Amino acid sequence: MIRVSVIGFGKVSRSLCAALLTADGVQLVQIFNRSKVKNTDFNADLFVHNLNELQEVDVVLISVPDRFILELANQIPFESAIVAHTAGSLGIEVIPEKFNRAVFYPLQTFSENKRVDFTNLPVFIEAEKETSLKILKELADSLHSKVIQVDADQRKALHVAAVFACNFSNHMYKLANDICEKHQLPFEVLLPLIEETAQKIKYLSPENAQTGPAIRHDETTINKHLAFLEEEDKKHIYSLLTQSIQNG
Amino acid sequence: MIRVSVIGFGKVSRSLCAALLTADGVQLVQIFNRSKVKNTDFNADLFVHNLNELQEVDVVLISVPDRFILELANQIPFESAIVAHTAGSLGIEVIPEKFNRAVFYPLQTFSENKRVDFTNLPVFIEAEKETSLKILKELADSLHSKVIQVDADQRKALHVAAVFACNFSNHMYKLANDICEKHQLPFEVLLPLIEETAQKIKYLSPENAQTGPAIRHDETTINKHLAFLEEEDKKHIYSLLTQSIQNG
Repeated sequence: MIRVSVIGFGKVSRSLCAALLTADGVQLVQIFNRSKVKNTDFNADLFVHNLNELQEVDVVLISVPDRFILELANQIPFESAIVAHTAGSLGIEVIPEKFNRAVFYPLQTFSENKRVDFTNLPVFIEAEKETSLKILKELADSLHSKVIQVDADQRKALHVAAVFACNFSNHMYKLANDICEKHQLPFEVLLPLIEETAQKIKYLSPENAQTGPAIRHDETTINKHLAFLEEEDKKHIYSLLTQSIQNG
Repeated sequence: MIRVSVIGFGKVSRSLCAALLTADGVQLVQIFNRSKVKNTDFNADLFVHNLNELQEVDVVLISVPDRFILELANQIPFESAIVAHTAGSLGIEVIPEKFNRAVFYPLQTFSENKRVDFTNLPVFIEAEKETSLKILKELADSLHSKVIQVDADQRKALHVAAVFACNFSNHMYKLANDICEKHQLPFEVLLPLIEETAQKIKYLSPENAQTGPAIRHDETTINKHLAFLEEEDKKHIYSLLTQSIQNG
Protein backbone atom coordinates (compact mmCIF):
# COMPACT_ATOMS: atom_id res chain seq x y z
CA MET A 1 0.00 0.00 0.00
CA ILE A 2 1.53 3.33 -1.07
CA ARG A 3 0.53 6.11 1.30
CA VAL A 4 0.17 9.42 -0.51
CA SER A 5 -0.67 12.96 0.52
CA VAL A 6 -1.33 15.81 -1.84
CA ILE A 7 -0.44 19.47 -1.37
CA GLY A 8 -2.80 21.77 -3.24
CA PHE A 9 -6.40 21.40 -4.32
CA GLY A 10 -6.56 23.10 -7.70
CA LYS A 11 -7.65 21.77 -11.08
CA VAL A 12 -4.94 19.12 -11.43
CA SER A 13 -5.10 18.08 -7.81
CA ARG A 14 -8.86 17.52 -7.76
CA SER A 15 -8.70 15.03 -10.61
CA LEU A 16 -5.56 13.43 -9.20
CA CYS A 17 -7.08 13.06 -5.71
CA ALA A 18 -10.25 11.55 -7.18
CA ALA A 19 -8.13 9.04 -9.08
CA LEU A 20 -6.01 8.25 -5.99
CA LEU A 21 -9.12 7.64 -3.89
CA THR A 22 -10.38 4.91 -6.21
CA ALA A 23 -7.01 3.32 -6.99
CA ASP A 24 -6.09 -0.10 -5.59
CA GLY A 25 -2.87 -0.29 -3.60
CA VAL A 26 -2.92 3.41 -2.79
CA GLN A 27 -4.14 5.28 0.24
CA LEU A 28 -4.79 9.00 -0.09
CA VAL A 29 -3.96 10.07 3.47
CA GLN A 30 -4.36 13.86 3.50
CA ILE A 31 -4.91 16.84 1.24
CA PHE A 32 -3.38 20.16 2.23
CA ASN A 33 -5.13 23.30 1.11
CA ARG A 34 -4.36 26.71 2.57
CA SER A 35 -7.98 27.79 2.82
CA LYS A 36 -11.07 25.82 3.70
CA VAL A 37 -12.49 23.92 0.72
CA LYS A 38 -16.13 24.54 -0.06
CA ASN A 39 -18.51 22.63 -2.30
CA THR A 40 -16.52 19.47 -2.63
CA ASP A 41 -17.63 15.85 -2.66
CA PHE A 42 -14.39 14.84 -0.93
CA ASN A 43 -14.57 13.74 2.69
CA ALA A 44 -13.86 16.74 4.92
CA ASP A 45 -11.62 14.59 7.16
CA LEU A 46 -9.05 14.37 4.37
CA PHE A 47 -8.22 18.05 4.49
CA VAL A 48 -5.59 19.83 6.57
CA HIS A 49 -4.93 23.55 6.43
CA ASN A 50 -1.61 23.54 8.21
CA LEU A 51 1.37 21.61 6.88
CA ASN A 52 2.49 20.76 10.44
CA GLU A 53 -0.44 18.38 10.53
CA LEU A 54 0.83 16.27 7.64
CA GLN A 55 1.33 12.66 8.66
CA GLU A 56 4.40 10.80 7.49
CA VAL A 57 3.65 9.13 4.13
CA ASP A 58 5.58 7.47 1.28
CA VAL A 59 4.86 10.11 -1.35
CA VAL A 60 3.89 13.77 -1.17
CA LEU A 61 2.61 15.15 -4.46
CA ILE A 62 2.77 18.93 -4.76
CA SER A 63 0.25 20.31 -7.20
CA VAL A 64 0.18 24.08 -6.78
CA PRO A 65 1.15 27.07 -8.93
CA ASP A 66 4.88 26.90 -9.74
CA ARG A 67 5.85 29.85 -7.55
CA PHE A 68 4.52 28.22 -4.34
CA ILE A 69 6.24 24.85 -4.68
CA LEU A 70 9.47 25.65 -2.83
CA GLU A 71 7.77 27.48 0.02
CA LEU A 72 5.25 24.70 0.66
CA ALA A 73 7.75 21.88 0.24
CA ASN A 74 9.96 23.47 2.87
CA GLN A 75 7.15 23.14 5.42
CA ILE A 76 6.69 19.39 5.04
CA PRO A 77 7.41 18.17 8.60
CA PHE A 78 9.31 14.97 7.65
CA GLU A 79 12.17 14.23 5.27
CA SER A 80 11.71 10.55 4.54
CA ALA A 81 9.15 10.91 1.75
CA ILE A 82 9.40 11.10 -1.98
CA VAL A 83 8.36 14.68 -2.72
CA ALA A 84 7.26 15.15 -6.31
CA HIS A 85 5.79 18.15 -8.08
CA THR A 86 3.33 17.77 -10.96
CA ALA A 87 4.52 20.69 -13.10
CA GLY A 88 5.59 20.26 -16.71
CA SER A 89 7.97 23.13 -17.04
CA LEU A 90 9.93 22.93 -13.78
CA GLY A 91 13.00 20.87 -13.01
CA ILE A 92 13.40 18.53 -10.08
CA GLU A 93 15.65 21.12 -8.40
CA VAL A 94 12.76 23.32 -7.24
CA ILE A 95 12.15 20.68 -4.56
CA PRO A 96 14.46 21.16 -1.54
CA GLU A 97 17.46 18.83 -1.58
CA LYS A 98 16.69 17.19 1.73
CA PHE A 99 13.84 15.17 0.19
CA ASN A 100 13.81 12.30 -2.26
CA ARG A 101 13.09 14.67 -5.09
CA ALA A 102 10.92 13.69 -8.02
CA VAL A 103 8.49 14.82 -10.69
CA PHE A 104 5.11 13.24 -11.45
CA TYR A 105 3.74 15.10 -14.49
CA PRO A 106 0.37 14.01 -15.91
CA LEU A 107 0.06 15.33 -19.47
CA GLN A 108 -3.48 16.56 -19.73
CA THR A 109 -5.60 19.71 -19.73
CA PHE A 110 -7.43 20.08 -16.44
CA SER A 111 -10.53 22.25 -16.26
CA GLU A 112 -12.70 23.41 -13.43
CA ASN A 113 -15.74 21.15 -12.92
CA LYS A 114 -14.56 18.41 -15.24
CA ARG A 115 -12.73 15.49 -13.70
CA VAL A 116 -10.00 13.93 -15.80
CA ASP A 117 -9.74 10.16 -16.00
CA PHE A 118 -6.19 8.99 -15.27
CA THR A 119 -6.72 5.68 -17.05
CA ASN A 120 -4.28 5.47 -19.98
CA LEU A 121 -3.11 9.01 -19.30
CA PRO A 122 0.62 9.49 -19.91
CA VAL A 123 2.37 10.36 -16.64
CA PHE A 124 5.98 11.42 -17.00
CA ILE A 125 8.20 10.68 -14.05
CA GLU A 126 11.67 11.69 -13.02
CA ALA A 127 13.46 10.97 -9.75
CA GLU A 128 16.91 11.11 -8.26
CA LYS A 129 16.79 7.61 -6.80
CA GLU A 130 15.96 4.30 -8.42
CA THR A 131 13.81 3.38 -5.42
CA SER A 132 11.75 6.56 -5.89
CA LEU A 133 11.26 5.78 -9.58
CA LYS A 134 10.03 2.31 -8.66
CA ILE A 135 7.45 3.63 -6.20
CA LEU A 136 6.23 6.35 -8.59
CA LYS A 137 5.87 3.71 -11.32
CA GLU A 138 3.79 1.60 -8.95
CA LEU A 139 1.71 4.64 -8.10
CA ALA A 140 1.05 5.44 -11.78
CA ASP A 141 0.28 1.77 -12.44
CA SER A 142 -2.29 1.84 -9.66
CA LEU A 143 -3.98 4.73 -11.45
CA HIS A 144 -3.86 2.66 -14.68
CA SER A 145 -1.88 5.52 -16.19
CA LYS A 146 0.78 5.07 -18.82
CA VAL A 147 4.00 5.82 -16.97
CA ILE A 148 6.97 7.08 -18.96
CA GLN A 149 10.37 7.99 -17.56
CA VAL A 150 11.84 11.12 -19.13
CA ASP A 151 14.67 13.53 -18.46
CA ALA A 152 14.20 17.22 -17.63
CA ASP A 153 14.78 18.33 -21.22
CA GLN A 154 12.19 15.94 -22.59
CA ARG A 155 9.66 17.07 -20.01
CA LYS A 156 10.23 20.69 -21.05
CA ALA A 157 9.70 19.65 -24.67
CA LEU A 158 6.46 17.92 -23.72
CA HIS A 159 5.22 21.00 -21.94
CA VAL A 160 5.88 23.19 -24.98
CA ALA A 161 4.39 20.57 -27.32
CA ALA A 162 1.29 20.51 -25.10
CA VAL A 163 0.88 24.26 -25.46
CA PHE A 164 0.69 23.82 -29.23
CA ALA A 165 -1.44 20.66 -29.18
CA CYS A 166 -3.87 21.89 -26.54
CA ASN A 167 -3.83 25.61 -25.72
CA PHE A 168 -3.20 26.78 -29.26
CA SER A 169 -5.57 24.34 -30.92
CA ASN A 170 -8.21 25.37 -28.38
CA HIS A 171 -7.53 28.96 -29.35
CA MET A 172 -8.19 28.00 -32.99
CA TYR A 173 -11.60 26.72 -31.80
CA LYS A 174 -12.10 30.04 -30.05
CA LEU A 175 -11.33 32.05 -33.20
CA ALA A 176 -13.66 29.76 -35.19
CA ASN A 177 -16.30 30.39 -32.53
CA ASP A 178 -15.85 34.16 -32.92
CA ILE A 179 -16.41 33.85 -36.68
CA CYS A 180 -19.53 31.72 -36.17
CA GLU A 181 -20.98 34.12 -33.60
CA LYS A 182 -20.41 37.07 -35.86
CA HIS A 183 -22.44 35.37 -38.60
CA GLN A 184 -25.24 34.01 -36.40
CA LEU A 185 -24.08 30.43 -36.68
CA PRO A 186 -24.07 28.10 -33.67
CA PHE A 187 -20.57 26.87 -32.73
CA GLU A 188 -22.02 23.34 -32.40
CA VAL A 189 -21.97 22.90 -36.19
CA LEU A 190 -18.17 22.76 -35.99
CA LEU A 191 -18.07 19.95 -33.42
CA PRO A 192 -18.07 16.99 -35.86
CA LEU A 193 -15.24 18.67 -37.79
CA ILE A 194 -13.23 19.30 -34.64
CA GLU A 195 -13.80 15.74 -33.46
CA GLU A 196 -12.79 14.20 -36.80
CA THR A 197 -9.66 16.40 -36.90
CA ALA A 198 -8.64 15.16 -33.44
CA GLN A 199 -9.55 11.54 -34.24
CA LYS A 200 -7.87 11.10 -37.56
CA ILE A 201 -4.36 11.73 -36.25
CA LYS A 202 -4.68 8.38 -34.49
CA TYR A 203 -4.34 6.83 -37.95
CA LEU A 204 -2.54 9.50 -39.96
CA SER A 205 0.41 11.69 -39.04
CA PRO A 206 -0.68 15.34 -38.62
CA GLU A 207 1.33 16.09 -41.75
CA ASN A 208 -0.58 13.54 -43.81
CA ALA A 209 -3.89 14.50 -42.22
CA GLN A 210 -3.67 18.11 -43.36
CA THR A 211 -6.40 19.36 -45.72
CA GLY A 212 -7.67 22.78 -46.77
CA PRO A 213 -6.59 25.70 -48.92
CA ALA A 214 -3.11 26.19 -47.40
CA ILE A 215 -1.78 22.71 -48.12
CA ARG A 216 -3.45 22.74 -51.57
CA HIS A 217 -1.72 26.09 -52.27
CA ASP A 218 -5.17 27.32 -53.29
CA GLU A 219 -4.28 31.01 -53.40
CA THR A 220 -7.72 32.01 -54.71
CA THR A 221 -9.48 30.67 -51.62
CA ILE A 222 -6.73 31.93 -49.29
CA ASN A 223 -7.12 35.45 -50.66
CA LYS A 224 -10.91 35.24 -50.40
CA HIS A 225 -10.59 34.20 -46.77
CA LEU A 226 -8.17 37.01 -45.98
CA ALA A 227 -10.54 39.49 -47.56
CA PHE A 228 -13.44 38.00 -45.61
CA LEU A 229 -11.67 38.28 -42.24
CA GLU A 230 -12.02 41.84 -41.11
CA GLU A 231 -10.02 41.88 -37.88
CA GLU A 232 -6.29 42.45 -38.30
CA ASP A 233 -5.29 39.88 -35.65
CA LYS A 234 -7.27 37.10 -37.37
CA LYS A 235 -5.81 38.05 -40.76
CA HIS A 236 -2.32 37.99 -39.27
CA ILE A 237 -2.81 34.56 -37.68
CA TYR A 238 -4.40 33.23 -40.89
CA SER A 239 -1.42 34.39 -42.98
CA LEU A 240 1.25 33.18 -40.61
CA LEU A 241 -0.27 29.72 -40.17
CA THR A 242 -0.98 29.35 -43.88
CA GLN A 243 2.66 30.13 -44.59
CA SER A 244 3.81 27.74 -41.89
CA ILE A 245 1.66 24.92 -43.35
CA GLN A 246 3.06 25.61 -46.79
CA ASN A 247 6.64 25.61 -45.50
CA GLY A 248 6.00 22.10 -44.19
CA MET B 1 -36.86 7.87 -54.36
CA ILE B 2 -34.42 10.69 -55.14
CA ARG B 3 -32.17 9.82 -58.08
CA VAL B 4 -28.71 11.31 -57.68
CA SER B 5 -25.55 11.33 -59.76
CA VAL B 6 -22.20 12.62 -58.62
CA ILE B 7 -19.57 14.39 -60.69
CA GLY B 8 -16.08 13.84 -59.36
CA PHE B 9 -14.53 11.04 -57.33
CA GLY B 10 -12.13 12.79 -54.97
CA LYS B 11 -11.91 12.72 -51.20
CA VAL B 12 -15.31 14.34 -50.52
CA SER B 13 -17.07 12.44 -53.27
CA ARG B 14 -15.89 9.00 -52.14
CA SER B 15 -17.39 9.44 -48.69
CA LEU B 16 -20.51 11.08 -50.11
CA CYS B 17 -21.06 8.28 -52.66
CA ALA B 18 -20.58 5.64 -49.98
CA ALA B 19 -23.21 7.39 -47.85
CA LEU B 20 -25.60 7.74 -50.81
CA LEU B 21 -25.29 4.04 -51.63
CA THR B 22 -26.50 2.98 -48.20
CA ALA B 23 -29.16 5.67 -47.74
CA ASP B 24 -32.85 4.79 -47.87
CA GLY B 25 -34.93 6.72 -50.35
CA VAL B 26 -31.94 7.58 -52.53
CA GLN B 27 -30.55 5.96 -55.64
CA LEU B 28 -26.97 6.73 -56.64
CA VAL B 29 -27.33 6.41 -60.40
CA GLN B 30 -23.90 7.29 -61.82
CA ILE B 31 -20.52 8.67 -60.84
CA PHE B 32 -18.58 10.68 -63.40
CA ASN B 33 -14.82 10.65 -63.20
CA ARG B 34 -12.59 11.86 -66.03
CA SER B 35 -10.13 9.00 -65.73
CA LYS B 36 -10.68 5.35 -64.96
CA VAL B 37 -10.94 4.68 -61.23
CA LYS B 38 -8.60 2.03 -59.86
CA ASN B 39 -8.63 0.25 -56.53
CA THR B 40 -12.14 1.07 -55.49
CA ASP B 41 -14.74 -1.07 -53.78
CA PHE B 42 -17.49 0.71 -55.73
CA ASN B 43 -19.30 -1.22 -58.44
CA ALA B 44 -17.57 -0.51 -61.78
CA ASP B 45 -20.98 -0.16 -63.49
CA LEU B 46 -21.60 3.07 -61.60
CA PHE B 47 -18.83 4.94 -63.35
CA VAL B 48 -18.99 6.97 -66.54
CA HIS B 49 -16.03 8.82 -68.04
CA ASN B 50 -17.96 10.98 -70.46
CA LEU B 51 -20.61 13.42 -69.27
CA ASN B 52 -22.72 12.71 -72.38
CA GLU B 53 -23.50 9.37 -70.79
CA LEU B 54 -25.16 10.91 -67.71
CA GLN B 55 -28.75 9.77 -67.36
CA GLU B 56 -31.41 12.26 -66.37
CA VAL B 57 -31.67 12.38 -62.55
CA ASP B 58 -33.23 14.62 -59.88
CA VAL B 59 -29.97 15.88 -58.40
CA VAL B 60 -26.44 16.18 -59.75
CA LEU B 61 -23.85 16.82 -57.05
CA ILE B 62 -20.59 18.31 -58.31
CA SER B 63 -17.66 17.53 -56.04
CA VAL B 64 -14.50 18.55 -57.88
CA PRO B 65 -11.81 21.21 -57.37
CA ASP B 66 -13.39 24.68 -57.53
CA ARG B 67 -11.84 25.64 -60.87
CA PHE B 68 -13.47 22.71 -62.74
CA ILE B 69 -17.05 23.21 -61.55
CA LEU B 70 -18.24 25.53 -64.32
CA GLU B 71 -16.65 23.55 -67.14
CA LEU B 72 -18.08 20.22 -65.95
CA ALA B 73 -21.52 21.61 -65.12
CA ASN B 74 -21.78 23.00 -68.65
CA GLN B 75 -21.46 19.49 -70.06
CA ILE B 76 -24.40 18.01 -68.14
CA PRO B 77 -26.66 16.82 -70.99
CA PHE B 78 -30.02 17.79 -69.40
CA GLU B 79 -31.33 20.95 -67.72
CA SER B 80 -34.10 19.62 -65.53
CA ALA B 81 -31.96 18.63 -62.55
CA ILE B 82 -30.96 20.38 -59.38
CA VAL B 83 -27.24 20.94 -59.86
CA ALA B 84 -25.42 21.54 -56.59
CA HIS B 85 -21.74 21.94 -55.83
CA THR B 86 -20.26 20.83 -52.51
CA ALA B 87 -17.73 23.65 -52.07
CA GLY B 88 -17.65 25.83 -48.97
CA SER B 89 -16.15 28.95 -50.41
CA LEU B 90 -18.02 29.31 -53.71
CA GLY B 91 -21.33 30.98 -54.37
CA ILE B 92 -24.27 29.41 -56.13
CA GLU B 93 -23.46 31.53 -59.20
CA VAL B 94 -20.59 29.31 -60.34
CA ILE B 95 -23.27 26.88 -61.53
CA PRO B 96 -24.64 27.84 -64.98
CA GLU B 97 -27.95 29.68 -64.80
CA LYS B 98 -29.87 27.19 -66.91
CA PHE B 99 -29.97 24.67 -64.03
CA ASN B 100 -31.80 24.66 -60.72
CA ARG B 101 -28.72 25.94 -58.97
CA ALA B 102 -27.86 24.89 -55.44
CA VAL B 103 -25.14 24.21 -52.89
CA PHE B 104 -24.81 21.09 -50.75
CA TYR B 105 -21.84 21.70 -48.44
CA PRO B 106 -20.92 18.99 -45.92
CA LEU B 107 -18.74 20.55 -43.21
CA GLN B 108 -16.05 18.00 -42.56
CA THR B 109 -12.39 17.20 -43.26
CA PHE B 110 -12.11 14.47 -45.85
CA SER B 111 -8.92 12.45 -46.08
CA GLU B 112 -7.67 9.83 -48.47
CA ASN B 113 -8.42 6.30 -47.27
CA LYS B 114 -10.72 7.33 -44.42
CA ARG B 115 -14.41 7.34 -45.11
CA VAL B 116 -16.44 10.00 -43.34
CA ASP B 117 -19.76 9.07 -41.77
CA PHE B 118 -22.51 11.47 -42.85
CA THR B 119 -24.68 10.63 -39.84
CA ASN B 120 -25.18 13.81 -37.78
CA LEU B 121 -22.83 15.68 -40.09
CA PRO B 122 -23.91 19.29 -40.67
CA VAL B 123 -24.76 19.80 -44.34
CA PHE B 124 -25.36 23.40 -45.36
CA ILE B 125 -27.71 23.92 -48.23
CA GLU B 126 -28.64 26.83 -50.41
CA ALA B 127 -30.88 26.86 -53.49
CA GLU B 128 -32.65 29.30 -55.74
CA LYS B 129 -35.99 27.48 -55.64
CA GLU B 130 -38.05 26.33 -52.69
CA THR B 131 -38.67 23.00 -54.45
CA SER B 132 -34.91 22.44 -54.76
CA LEU B 133 -34.42 23.21 -51.07
CA LYS B 134 -37.10 20.68 -50.20
CA ILE B 135 -35.46 17.92 -52.23
CA LEU B 136 -31.98 18.69 -50.88
CA LYS B 137 -33.39 18.58 -47.34
CA GLU B 138 -34.90 15.18 -48.08
CA LEU B 139 -31.58 14.03 -49.49
CA ALA B 140 -29.66 15.17 -46.40
CA ASP B 141 -32.30 13.57 -44.17
CA SER B 142 -31.83 10.28 -46.00
CA LEU B 143 -28.13 10.48 -45.13
CA HIS B 144 -29.15 11.19 -41.49
CA SER B 145 -27.18 14.39 -41.78
CA LYS B 146 -28.06 17.57 -39.95
CA VAL B 147 -29.31 19.85 -42.69
CA ILE B 148 -29.02 23.61 -42.18
CA GLN B 149 -30.09 26.28 -44.64
CA VAL B 150 -27.65 29.18 -44.85
CA ASP B 151 -26.99 32.14 -47.10
CA ALA B 152 -23.82 32.62 -49.16
CA ASP B 153 -22.21 34.88 -46.57
CA GLN B 154 -22.78 32.41 -43.76
CA ARG B 155 -21.33 29.58 -45.83
CA LYS B 156 -18.21 31.66 -46.48
CA ALA B 157 -17.95 32.29 -42.74
CA LEU B 158 -18.26 28.56 -42.07
CA HIS B 159 -15.51 27.80 -44.55
CA VAL B 160 -13.14 30.27 -42.89
CA ALA B 161 -14.13 29.05 -39.41
CA ALA B 162 -13.40 25.48 -40.57
CA VAL B 163 -9.89 26.49 -41.62
CA PHE B 164 -9.23 27.66 -38.06
CA ALA B 165 -11.02 24.78 -36.33
CA CYS B 166 -9.57 22.05 -38.52
CA ASN B 167 -6.58 22.97 -40.71
CA PHE B 168 -4.94 25.29 -38.21
CA SER B 169 -5.59 23.10 -35.18
CA ASN B 170 -4.19 20.17 -37.17
CA HIS B 171 -1.14 22.31 -37.88
CA MET B 172 -0.75 22.85 -34.13
CA TYR B 173 -0.66 19.03 -33.80
CA LYS B 174 1.98 19.00 -36.52
CA LEU B 175 4.18 21.54 -34.72
CA ALA B 176 3.74 19.58 -31.47
CA ASN B 177 4.76 16.47 -33.38
CA ASP B 178 7.92 18.23 -34.63
CA ILE B 179 8.85 19.12 -31.04
CA CYS B 180 8.26 15.54 -29.87
CA GLU B 181 10.31 14.07 -32.70
CA LYS B 182 13.18 16.41 -32.00
CA HIS B 183 13.29 15.19 -28.40
CA GLN B 184 12.81 11.47 -29.10
CA LEU B 185 9.27 11.40 -27.76
CA PRO B 186 6.49 9.48 -29.51
CA PHE B 187 3.66 11.71 -30.75
CA GLU B 188 1.18 9.19 -29.31
CA VAL B 189 1.75 10.57 -25.79
CA LEU B 190 -0.11 13.72 -26.88
CA LEU B 191 -3.23 11.88 -28.08
CA PRO B 192 -5.16 11.87 -24.76
CA LEU B 193 -4.47 15.60 -24.42
CA ILE B 194 -5.62 16.31 -27.97
CA GLU B 195 -8.73 14.21 -27.47
CA GLU B 196 -9.66 15.87 -24.18
CA THR B 197 -9.11 19.32 -25.74
CA ALA B 198 -11.50 18.44 -28.57
CA GLN B 199 -14.01 16.79 -26.23
CA LYS B 200 -14.30 19.40 -23.54
CA ILE B 201 -15.63 22.10 -25.83
CA LYS B 202 -18.82 20.05 -26.00
CA TYR B 203 -19.44 21.20 -22.43
CA LEU B 204 -17.41 24.39 -22.14
CA SER B 205 -17.06 27.28 -24.57
CA PRO B 206 -13.54 27.37 -26.08
CA GLU B 207 -12.99 30.57 -24.13
CA ASN B 208 -13.83 28.90 -20.82
CA ALA B 209 -11.95 25.75 -21.76
CA GLN B 210 -8.65 27.57 -22.22
CA THR B 211 -5.76 26.54 -19.94
CA GLY B 212 -1.99 26.96 -20.00
CA PRO B 213 0.60 29.69 -19.51
CA ALA B 214 -0.90 32.26 -21.92
CA ILE B 215 -4.31 32.55 -20.27
CA ARG B 216 -2.67 32.47 -16.81
CA HIS B 217 -0.37 35.31 -17.93
CA ASP B 218 2.47 33.15 -16.64
CA GLU B 219 5.29 35.17 -18.20
CA THR B 220 8.01 33.05 -16.56
CA THR B 221 6.83 29.90 -18.32
CA ILE B 222 6.13 31.74 -21.58
CA ASN B 223 9.68 33.09 -21.65
CA LYS B 224 11.10 29.68 -20.83
CA HIS B 225 9.14 28.18 -23.72
CA LEU B 226 10.29 30.87 -26.13
CA ALA B 227 13.89 30.27 -25.10
CA PHE B 228 13.38 26.52 -25.51
CA LEU B 229 11.97 26.82 -29.04
CA GLU B 230 14.91 27.24 -31.36
CA GLU B 231 13.24 27.70 -34.73
CA GLU B 232 12.19 31.26 -35.53
CA ASP B 233 8.85 30.25 -37.11
CA LYS B 234 7.78 28.31 -34.01
CA LYS B 235 8.82 31.21 -31.76
CA HIS B 236 6.85 33.61 -33.94
CA ILE B 237 3.71 31.45 -33.88
CA TYR B 238 4.07 30.91 -30.12
CA SER B 239 4.30 34.66 -29.47
CA LEU B 240 1.46 35.64 -31.78
CA LEU B 241 -0.96 33.02 -30.43
CA THR B 242 -0.02 33.74 -26.82
CA GLN B 243 -0.76 37.40 -27.43
CA SER B 244 -4.03 36.57 -29.17
CA ILE B 245 -5.13 34.36 -26.24
CA GLN B 246 -4.27 37.15 -23.81
CA ASN B 247 -6.19 39.71 -25.86
CA GLY B 248 -9.27 37.48 -25.49
